[in-house]
Order: sequence, then C-alpha cells, then structure tokens
Amino acid sequence: MASAPVGVAVIGAGMVGRAHAAAYRNAATVYDLDAPAARLVAVADVHAPFATDAARRYGFARAETDWRAVIDAPDVDAVSVAVANGLHREITEAALAAGKHVLCEKPLAPSVADAQAMVDAAESAPGVVNAVGFTFRRSPAISAIRQQVTEGGLGPVRHLVGNYWCDYGVDPDRPMSWRYRGGPGSGVLADIGSHLTDLAEFFCGATAGVQGTTMATLVTDRPRPLGVAVGHAGGVRVSADRVPVENEDICTFTASYPGGAVGTFALSRVAYGHANTLKLDLFCENGTASFDLTRPAEFSIVDGGPAQPVNGVRTVPLGPWHPYLGGGLPMDFPTVGHGQNDLFVFQARAFLDQIAGLDRLPPCPDMAHGLHNLKVLEAVVAATDKPEPTRGGKPMQISDSV
Amino acid sequence: MASAPVGVAVIGAGMVGRAHAAAYRNAATVYDLDAPAARLVAVADVHAPFATDAARRYGFARAETDWRAVIDAPDVDAVSVAVANGLHREITEAALAAGKHVLCEKPLAPSVADAQAMVDAAESAPGVVNAVGFTFRRSPAISAIRQQVTEGGLGPVRHLVGNYWCDYGVDPDRPMSWRYRGGPGSGVLADIGSHLTDLAEFFCGATAGVQGTTMATLVTDRPRPLGVAVGHAGGVRVSADRVPVENEDICTFTASYPGGAVGTFALSRVAYGHANTLKLDLFCENGTASFDLTRPAEFSIVDGGPAQPVNGVRTVPLGPWHPYLGGGLPMDFPTVGHGQNDLFVFQARAFLDQIAGLDRLPPCPDMAHGLHNLKVLEAVVAATDKPEPTRGGKPMQISDSV
Amino acid sequence: MASAPVGVAVIGAGMVGRAHAAAYRNAATVYDLDAPAARLVAVADVHAPFATDAARRYGFARAETDWRAVIDAPDVDAVSVAVANGLHREITEAALAAGKHVLCEKPLAPSVADAQAMVDAAESAPGVVNAVGFTFRRSPAISAIRQQVTEGGLGPVRHLVGNYWCDYGVDPDRPMSWRYRGGPGSGVLADIGSHLTDLAEFFCGATAGVQGTTMATLVTDRPRPLGVAVGHAGGVRVSADRVPVENEDICTFTASYPGGAVGTFALSRVAYGHANTLKLDLFCENGTASFDLTRPAEFSIVDGGPAQPVNGVRTVPLGPWHPYLGGGLPMDFPTVGHGQNDLFVFQARAFLDQIAGLDRLPPCPDMAHGLHNLKVLEAVVAATDKPEPTRGGKPMQISDSV
Amino acid sequence: MASAPVGVAVIGAGMVGRAHAAAYRNAATVYDLDAPAARLVAVADVHAPFATDAARRYGFARAETDWRAVIDAPDVDAVSVAVANGLHREITEAALAAGKHVLCEKPLAPSVADAQAMVDAAESAPGVVNAVGFTFRRSPAISAIRQQVTEGGLGPVRHLVGNYWCDYGVDPDRPMSWRYRGGPGSGVLADIGSHLTDLAEFFCGATAGVQGTTMATLVTDRPRPLGVAVGHAGGVRVSADRVPVENEDICTFTASYPGGAVGTFALSRVAYGHANTLKLDLFCENGTASFDLTRPAEFSIVDGGPAQPVNGVRTVPLGPWHPYLGGGLPMDFPTVGHGQNDLFVFQARAFLDQIAGLDRLPPCPDMAHGLHNLKVLEAVVAATDKPEPTRGGKPMQISDSV
Repeated sequence: MASAPVGVAVIGAGMVGRAHAAAYRNAATVYDLDAPAARLVAVADVHAPFATDAARRYGFARAETDWRAVIDAPDVDAVSVAVANGLHREITEAALAAGKHVLCEKPLAPSVADAQAMVDAAESAPGVVNAVGFTFRRSPAISAIRQQVTEGGLGPVRHLVGNYWCDYGVDPDRPMSWRYRGGPGSGVLADIGSHLTDLAEFFCGATAGVQGTTMATLVTDRPRPLGVAVGHAGGVRVSADRVPVENEDICTFTASYPGGAVGTFALSRVAYGHANTLKLDLFCENGTASFDLTRPAEFSIVDGGPAQPVNGVRTVPLGPWHPYLGGGLPMDFPTVGHGQNDLFVFQARAFLDQIAGLDRLPPCPDMAHGLHNLKVLEAVVAATDKPEPTRGGKPMQISDSV
Repeated sequence: MASAPVGVAVIGAGMVGRAHAAAYRNAATVYDLDAPAARLVAVADVHAPFATDAARRYGFARAETDWRAVIDAPDVDAVSVAVANGLHREITEAALAAGKHVLCEKPLAPSVADAQAMVDAAESAPGVVNAVGFTFRRSPAISAIRQQVTEGGLGPVRHLVGNYWCDYGVDPDRPMSWRYRGGPGSGVLADIGSHLTDLAEFFCGATAGVQGTTMATLVTDRPRPLGVAVGHAGGVRVSADRVPVENEDICTFTASYPGGAVGTFALSRVAYGHANTLKLDLFCENGTASFDLTRPAEFSIVDGGPAQPVNGVRTVPLGPWHPYLGGGLPMDFPTVGHGQNDLFVFQARAFLDQIAGLDRLPPCPDMAHGLHNLKVLEAVVAATDKPEPTRGGKPMQISDSV
Repeated sequence: MASAPVGVAVIGAGMVGRAHAAAYRNAATVYDLDAPAARLVAVADVHAPFATDAARRYGFARAETDWRAVIDAPDVDAVSVAVANGLHREITEAALAAGKHVLCEKPLAPSVADAQAMVDAAESAPGVVNAVGFTFRRSPAISAIRQQVTEGGLGPVRHLVGNYWCDYGVDPDRPMSWRYRGGPGSGVLADIGSHLTDLAEFFCGATAGVQGTTMATLVTDRPRPLGVAVGHAGGVRVSADRVPVENEDICTFTASYPGGAVGTFALSRVAYGHANTLKLDLFCENGTASFDLTRPAEFSIVDGGPAQPVNGVRTVPLGPWHPYLGGGLPMDFPTVGHGQNDLFVFQARAFLDQIAGLDRLPPCPDMAHGLHNLKVLEAVVAATDKPEPTRGGKPMQISDSV
Repeated sequence: MASAPVGVAVIGAGMVGRAHAAAYRNAATVYDLDAPAARLVAVADVHAPFATDAARRYGFARAETDWRAVIDAPDVDAVSVAVANGLHREITEAALAAGKHVLCEKPLAPSVADAQAMVDAAESAPGVVNAVGFTFRRSPAISAIRQQVTEGGLGPVRHLVGNYWCDYGVDPDRPMSWRYRGGPGSGVLADIGSHLTDLAEFFCGATAGVQGTTMATLVTDRPRPLGVAVGHAGGVRVSADRVPVENEDICTFTASYPGGAVGTFALSRVAYGHANTLKLDLFCENGTASFDLTRPAEFSIVDGGPAQPVNGVRTVPLGPWHPYLGGGLPMDFPTVGHGQNDLFVFQARAFLDQIAGLDRLPPCPDMAHGLHNLKVLEAVVAATDKPEPTRGGKPMQISDSV
C-alpha cells in the first residue's frame, strides 16, 4: 500500500473498548497481505488506569483521560467509540466534525433523534467513513449460514427464533451502571437485543412488524457504586444505599418479515448460568440451521443432503473454506477455535479497508443502518400495551393444586 | 387388590391410540405392585386393519370398527379417546353417559363451547373419572425440574421459553388430514402448542395474559388423500388435486404469568429436520433448567451448587431416585433411556389408580383442566390483530444490499 | 400362528432378570403381527420377594424360589438364565437336558471349559434353541451403523475405539457380590467388557490378536453383605468386616482384526459419574460413526455425503426407517426415545421367532458364539505379563515439579 | 521493565511457525502489564513467499530464506524452531551455540540420541533458556482440570483415556511430506501422540510402563509433491508417481503410571471427519473430568458436588477466574471462545518471561523434558512385538455370518 498508515484511537477502555484496541493491533494479520497500515495512536478513558492498561497492553502510543484530546489530535485519523450509549452522539459528532473516520458501538444512540443527528453529521462529513459495530455479522458461522440461505441449500428463512441470554444482571448486588438507566427499551433490548434484531434482518430482510412486546424487571434496585464500573461491573465497591433500576431485565416479542417470515425473540440479562448465550434457529424452506455463541467456531445444519437412514443435524466446524477464515488465523484448519474477540479483528480490518478505499470485504454497516436498527427497537417498545416493564416482586409460588 | 379388574378400551388406533393401548398393557409394570388389575377389552378404529393390528399387537380381546360398539359394551369400564379432535365431544359424551371412565386426548375439543359441554357431561356423571391427556406432565425429567422449582434450588420461574418444533407438515406432498382443517389456532397451536401452554402453567401458574400472536401458513394446499391417513400420514396414496390448508403451520406469541413471569413461545409443524423437538428453558430466581425431548431421559440445570471455578450446566440423567422411575423400568439405573411411549404408561397407571380410588400418584388433569387449556388457546388466537394466518408464497430473497 | 403358545420362564429376578421378564411380556408388540404366542409361566429367584415382585409386575403366572422347579415344570418350554455367571452352566445344562430352549446371559460361563461343556450340552439337545444374550446387537443405532459398514457409505472399519464405563463399583462401601469374585478377567472384563469384544467382532470380524492388557483394582476390599444383593447392590445392609475384591475394576487392551483393523478398549466399573456409558467410535475407510449409550436413540456419522462447506458430524435420530423400529414402538416417528430395556424386547422376540422356526429376524447368537466370546476374553487375560491386576493404594500425588 | 527488548525470530513459516509468529506479536497483551518487551525481528523459511507472508502479516522486520541468517543476526536474542523434526537438532545446536534462547517444537528430535545431543548443547549454553513446545499444557481448560486433580475435588487420576484423532492423512492423494517419512513411531505417534503422552504425565506422573502397542498404515503410498508442501499439504501440485509412506497412520497402546494409574491411548491421522480432535477422559478418585479440543473453551466435570437428584456432568465454560485467562483476552467473560492459537500466545509470554528472569508463570518445559518425552515414545515403539506397522490393504468385508 502506498498510502500513509492510518492513525487509530479507541475511546473507552472497558471490556468492549479493549476488544477494539486488540482488534486494531491484529487487523493486518487476517485475510490477505494487502492490509492498510495502521498506527496505534491512543486509548482514552475517563478512568486513567483503564486507559493506561489498554494502551500499554495493546501497544498504543499514548493514553488519554479526555476523549477530546483524541478528537483534537492531528495524528488520529480514525476512532472507535466504545463508551456508554449516552455519550455516543456527542463524541461521534465531534469526531466527524474533526474529519475522523468513526466506528461507533451499537446501539448507535439512546434515541432515534440522537441517531438521526449522527447520521446527519456523517452525511455532512464527506470522505469520512462512518460505521456501527454490529460485530456478529462478521461471525464466520453466521456468515456461513447466511450463504446457505442466499445461495446454498437452505433457501429463504420462514421462521427465525432468536435468543440472547446473559447473566450479567442476575446478581442483585452488582452495582448500578449506565446499563440500568433510561426508560423501557434501554435495558436488555438495547444492550443485546439490538444485535438480534440486526441479525434477524441480516437473514430475513427489513422488519415488517413487531408484536406482543413483554418486558419485566426482576432486580428493581441496585447498590450505588463507589468507584468506576467497567464491563459488567463485577468487583466494584458499592455504597450501602440502593438506586432504582430504570429499564428492563427481560424482553420478549414477535416480529414479521417480508414474504411472511416470522420471528420469535427472547432476551434476558438475568439468565442464571448463561454468561453470553446467543442462539439463532433458522427454519428455512429447505432446511434448518442453528448458531450458538457458546460454541462460536461451529454451526449446525440439516437439509435434504444425505438421504435417510443417515440424515441428521450436522455439526459443522468452521474451517479455512469458510468466509473470513481463509488466510486468517494462523492455524489454518478447523476446530482450533475462535471467538468473539476475533470478530472484532475481522471488523477492524473491514473498517480499515474502507478507509483505504478497498472493497474486498463486506463493508461495516453505516450509521444509517444503525439509525434503522434504533427504529426497529422503537417499534419493539411501541408494541407493548404498557411500555413500563413489569416490576419484580416475588413470582407466585406454584403448588400441586395448579 | 380385591376389586374386579377394570375393562379398558381404546378408541382410535392411530399413532396415539397405539400408545394408549401399549400403555394399558404395561400400566401394572411400573411403580409399586399394587396396581389395579386391568382387562384389555377392545380397540376401535373406523379403519378395520388398524383396529385389528393394535388389538392383536397389544393383546386386546377384540377389535371394533364402530366406536359405539365400545361404548355399548358392558365389559368396558374405561376408554381412551384418541381420535381426531372433532370427534372428541361426541364420543366422550356418549362414553360418560354410558358410565365409562374417560381419558380424552388433548386438546380436549375443537372449541371452548364443545369443551364446556364435555365438562358439563362429566359433572353429570357421578363416580366417573374424567381426564385429559397432558402426557408431558408425566415426564420424569419435567417432573424433576418442577420439583426443583417448587421445593429445590431453582426457585420460582421468571422467564419460560417454550419451543415445540415438528416437521410432519414440511413436505407439501403429504396429504390433507384433519390436522390441517379448521380456523386459525386449530393447526400447530392446538396440535402441539396445547402441550406447551399447559406445561407453562405447570411451572408458572395460570396464564395472566397473551400478546403478539403471529401465525403463518407455509404450505397452503395439500393433495387429497385417497385412503385412510394415520399418524402424520406418510405413505398414503393421494389424488392429483389439492385442497386448501385451513390453519397455521407456525405460531408464536408471548405471555405473562402471576408475579410477573414472562413466557416466549414458538411452535412449528414445518421445522425441517425436527421430528419432535420440545424444548423448555426455565430461567428461575436461583438457577436455570432445560428440557429437550430429543434426549428425553435427561435434563440440564445450573444453580449456585458447586462454586467456581467448576460450576457449569449439569446434564442430569434420570435415575431411580427420580419421581416416576423408582420401581419402574426394569433397568433400575440411569441412562438406559426412556421416551414418549413410557409417558403414556405412567399416565395409564395414574388413570387406573384414580378409577380404583387410589391417590398415590398425581392424578391426571381433568376435563375442567382441558377446558381451561382451550380458553388459553382461545386467548392466544385473540392476541393477534388479524387472526387469519399469513398465507405462504415465497419469502423475499435477501441480498447483500440489506 | 397355528402352533401352541410357548411357555416362558425367567430364572433370576435381579435387574437383568426383570428386563427379560418385561421383554417376554412385550415381545409380540414389536415388528409384524405374526409373533409367536407366549405364555408367561414363571419367574424364579432364590430370594422370594424378588421372584414374587417380578412375576406379579410382569404378569407371570407363578413365582418360584428354586430354579429346579422351573426346569421340571412341563408347562415351561423356554427359559432365560439371568443369574450370577457361576450358576450359568449348571442351570443351562439342566434346562437343555429337560428339553427347554435356553437364552443365557453373557458372559456365557466363568471359563472356557464351562462354556465348552454348555455348547456340548446344547449340541446334544436336538430341536432346542440355545442362545446367549449379546443384547446390544439388537440396538437400532448399532444395527444402523453396521448397515453403513457392510452396505452403506462407511466401508470397512479400520480402527475401532470401544469404551464401556460404569460407576457401580465406585463406592467402596457397596457390598461384596459375585461381580467382585473370581480371578483376573472375571471382573469388569467379563461383566461389561464381553459386550465390547463382541460388538468389535460384530463390526470387524473375528479377533486376530490381543495385546497389552493392563488391569487395576482400585477398591481392594468391600463390606460383607448381610442380605441379598441385587443388581448393582445399592441399599443392602452390610457387615462391619470387609472381604477382598478378587478381580479387576479397570481393564484396557489393544486388539487386531482381519485385514489390519485395530482396536482400542477401555473398561471401567469405577468411572465416577458414568452410570452406564458404552461408547463406540468406528473409523472406517470412507467415514466415521459413533454410538453412545447415554443417548441410545441416536448415532452420529460423518462421510463424504454433503460437500463442504456444510459437511460435519450428523446426529441421526433412529426412526421407523431403521432396522428393528419399523412396526415397533407405538410412536412411529423418531426422537421419542427408547433404551436398553427395549433391546431386551427385540431380543425376546427374536428368540421366540427362532423357537417357532421363523427366520425373519437376525437370530440370537448361539452358545458356540458365547464360547468364542469367552476365548477372546481368555486371550485378553493372556495378553498381560502379570495377569494379577495392579492392586490399589493411593496413586502418587503429582506436583508442579513433574 | 528496564531491560532492553528481546529480539525474536521464527524459523519455519508453515502452519505452526505462523502460530509462533502471531504469538510473539501478542504475548504482551495477556496477563499483567509487566510483559517483557519484544522486538519482532525475522521470520525464516526456505520457501521465500512463506517467509515474506508471515513476516509481513505478523509485523516482523524482515524475512529470510536461510535459517543461518537468523542465527547469525546479532539483533536476534530468541528463536522459535518450527520446522520438520529432522532439522530440529542442527538448527537448535547452532542457535544455542550462538547464545540464542531457543523454543523448539515437539517432538524435540527424530531420535533419543539427537535429543540427548540437544540437551547437552543446552547445558553447555549457560544463561540461555531452552524450551520445547508442549503447548497444550497452556490450555486454560487442561490447567483447570489439573488444578482439580492436584488441589480440588477430583483427587488423583486412576485411569486416563487419551484420544487424538486427525484426518490430515485420510486423503490418499495428499502429497508425501516429512510427516510420512521415518520408521515406526515417527508417524502419528511422534506428530500428535507426543502431545498425549506428555499430557498423561502432566496428570499422572512419569510413565511407569507401556504395553501392547499396535500400529497400522492405511495409506501405503502417496503422490510425490511437485512444489513446497506446508502445513498438512492441501492444495499442492503432485507428480503422477507415488512414493511409499514409511510410518504409521494409527497407533494404540496402554500404559501404567505411579501408584497404579492406567492409561489407554488411541492415535490416528486417518480419522475421517476429525480435523483435530484431542480428547482426554480422566477418571479420578473422587470424580471424572473431560476435555475435547473441538470445544477448547470448556471442559466437563462430575464429582460429588451437588447432591442427587440434580447431579450430573457439568459443562464448565472457561472464564476470567481460570488460570491463564484473568487479565488476558479482551472480552473478560466466559464463552467468548478461544482456541489453539491462543495457547501459543500464552506459551510465548511464558518463554519471554523466562528470558527476562521472571517466574510468575509456569515455565515452559525444557529440552530435558523433551528428551524424556522421546524416551517415552521410544518405549511405546518398543512395546510392540513387530515394530513394523501393519500395512494396509482392504480390510476384510464382514458379513452376517460373523
């Protein structure tokens, strides 16, 4: 590549920010050799130790505690925005105004209005790449399934069942954080549900309708944190007083897609024992496929391939013949395993390719895509009679008389 | 037992009728030795070869082609009604009027009105046991999970995700049958969804609300059968002309339960490669449990039991220490496997115990319970804006521009 | 069938005897309708309550405490011998001399000499069926795999890995029983290893060589039982004194088969948490197949069937299209589950068919087959330098210096 | 760290060499922040395009085609030797003589004599770190199991069943390579079996005896390659003539360990459909644990932890609470997945720590350890009567008469 290396920075050094930082470090190691060169310039976090740790660990030149220092830096060409949703707009607008390429985490913003403003800002920044981090679209397994839907033996999706179950909220003594603030829809729906509604459209096309949204909040208050909470906030010291949780722990709904495809969704951040379970079951015209994030390097499929009496659900390991893996991980054969971290590497590479004007990889979804996703989330919230989630309290005790 | 043996008969010799016949044969082999004695009197089916086969195979004294012959027989004390839903009411009313104990298959009837009439008839038949076949309540795995909910470490259910996926309707060239007739809700919802709504109440208590029902019919017409179709109607000769399918292939909805528990449901009879997949995931206050009918002799559970770093989802085989298995299957240790057929044996034993006035086992749900189940199904249908299921047609082809 | 019903009896009312009793009860319910008729005559056990329970539970006309009463009974035509190995010869010889058809449990006898005598006795009893209970040859899954080896896509076996892991011996406070008596080879090798060496020959042909046998005894003494021990002897009262265990808890060896196929075997009765895990992995010329008894109603297979990128190991449920299931279990579609008990039913039906002179099903292996199996076990014992198994004692504690 | 950065180089740019190169790049990203600094100096491979690709992809300053250029370079302080076994000794001796720290791939050498010479050379090179790449000892899952053996609830291992099944040799038209040259024991035993015999000692202590080794070669000749073959040599152009395979495709044996523990081993490079299946089953005094490389980010365990009726095998995801993962991967919660590539990163970090004189991590096994491993492999070969593996030819066809 003749062009100058791209100076990259990451704003936010929590769990996801670290994933972005590691990803820029390794973006050139995947795919072919013509990766755009990148300089690892800065990591910023309001909490200095986080910024310093991530910068040092992943080889960035400096750590900052004020994101504005990153935006103002002339040696920064591109930034990842990986902070609390409420800060996405301000930072992104400033970055775009400064002519930086921006990869913003999902959901794009706390509201459709905010997201629209961000899209407007992006459109007013010619020559600047704007992107939103729907990272699962980079999953080799999910890509492989989609290829079977669009070109292979599965055919169009008729029914999609999407589950995303986490347990980060299951402990009522984990401290309050931004994840628990905001109105209905800003909880589990925005945090992890946004991935599922996006994947559903990846497979089924644009959402045609949403129905029957039901929300519940099981942990209704949480201790006030005394220090900085990062990631899912384990291990932080807390105050004796508790503050109310403002949004939903559980969210379930149904949806419709073009041509009559149907969707079923169940989201939870209080699913005991499920650290990070994203499951998709796709019932298609000529077969069925499934993905389970707990085993990210495989997927399952059944179609009319082998005849009876030896047909059954096939567990397919991802190998070098799959999109995104050829030329990628050093071990170029299947079953060596890869995971969510690798998806960020694939995403970083695509973002850098876009900045360099290369079009070999599927581009990152842009902010207009992120705005659309927020409109779908809004439709999910609107599809409940009483948008206030049901507040906890002990469920009834069932007895044998039922 | 001092009392005279109970004369039993089965009306309907299709797939489920045969399961009832086999179950009566073996009801005395499970649990303790004090099983009420039973005489295997008759199997009836309008299609004589079916009646003859089942009677001979399971050791019943005679085969009949007219169900009225069974109802009129003085040597028959109890009958299973295992025919098309549309015939349940007439046969059950006649049986009850003749003083027979009746175990009727689910769903109890095609409509709430019919079910109400059956309950009225049952109440007018003093001394007669009336029951409905919600067989999965007899599953050792499901019982074991419920015990953990009501008495064990799981605690109350907060979120139930229920899936029932079959493929009996996936082949558009399988002939028309009663399963495909009737209005919205009489398809997959009544046929297999009724099991799931019942199990949800087994775990969560009475349904408080249903929302967002979405239905779809993918196979909109089917060949007219030329002969008798049994079970799921494979192998039957068909006519060249096709008749319209009248009800839904897919149905999904959300529900609410007392205390704020939430339910997510996805039902399909067109789920390629899933012969009979009933899955329950139960997220409870202190743990999570799952059941999967494809592995009926085990369940999984995770709770705070073993501390980290060795906690994880436990796959628990059903052993003699579990309800319904102690004293039951000859191989009195786990992992020998048991399946759906065994559930019918457990059910038959409970029904015979009830007839004998014994109360050692959980009784079969009665017809009032079956009526309640129909009201829930009615609520599911009512929870859609447009109760006509979406008609098939090719789903849109998605492309990379999405 | 014009012929008179066959009078059947079961000698031994422990775990396996009960499985035989249940199997005769249901032999006519599987396969086609032309099952030979059977009269359930007697169950015998030296412990009267066991005999009475099994007779009553499975519908046999009478219970006996002396096996000679069964042998002498003119209304008994066929007997299952399901007692401790040490008694097989005496009972079988007496039964054959009395003209009874005999189905004897495996291993056929405690020694090759005893087995030879039984074969001689069988050959001197013309018109009498003699059989040995290698029940797993009746497994639908195992049959289906073998069909793929002999006629399907797998081709000949190149490497068989056979594991049989149980935990019935894991608790050192379970009482002494006949399973723990006898010299090297009479322990886990005879009790469950005999199944595996037989299955290996089912797939690979006659054993050509055995090498490297290694045995170990971990529980070196056990409490003396005060009452009758049945099955795996849980719950029996024990004495304070302990008696030495005489045979091996663990046995492992390698073997060779015609054409260069190789076998690896690992047997244990002290495998914590494995109630009954029989696993076969078959690496064949054109594919691989596996069976796992903990999920008895399925098997897995991978071959060149579907092309990449969607090839993988297929989990195949056993359905009515598989040998032994068509016309069998009432639920005539896959995934309803069946287990080890069902294998005894399939075996009982084959035995009764043989008695009736019918040849529609693969016949039960005869006693010459059982003798051959004992010679293989003898070769396994001979393939160790020091046939005394290693005695327990605490294994060394490893440390980080290793 | 005050010390100067360590200059690292990788000799060999095939599949494993690339894993080493990627590992050095990321060694500082795992564990705490005090990683020794490393300069990525050179990658060498006789095939220039490989050297260039790996150097560029992983950020090394230069590519070389002669390994001597690396040994002679004053800016190289440490080298990984990742070439064909036959070259290990010459390169390692030269590197040690030049005062380089050496991490050599396993098996250490083609023979005990070669390995002994390498150990002697290492001992003559004071201040130089010598190490051998038994990478699986870095697996978080395997480490977690071992911790349960040495300090946790499992207790000492009584029986270890180790399987390593690959399919890289299954296609008879894949070209000849160094993996197929050398006498008995230099095939699958050395290539992947060396990992298993090492892991067995990691869990059970030093091998006390080996018995019953049986080998087989199924693919007896292979096409001569026309170009450079790398990794498992797919996609290389081949000649029309074929050359004989010189070593074994399959190897199985049993072993003994101190205190009476028993081992069962089955190795194959012709296991259809198994790209890279390493399975360990460890039966311990108080429980059982299993590892399966196809799901590298989890392990399973069963012990007396939770009481019945809810005990079962637990599938444990690896989380930040496990050795090697805390502070490591960016996503600091379980189930995000990691794989074989990550093990090389953990190993590189330990190697660099050793060079820097830090002792926070378990050190890499040294070359004396690698020599010991070769002696065990030698014992495996010696434990067969006829050390020439059985040559292929079609296995016999079995028939129903067996």
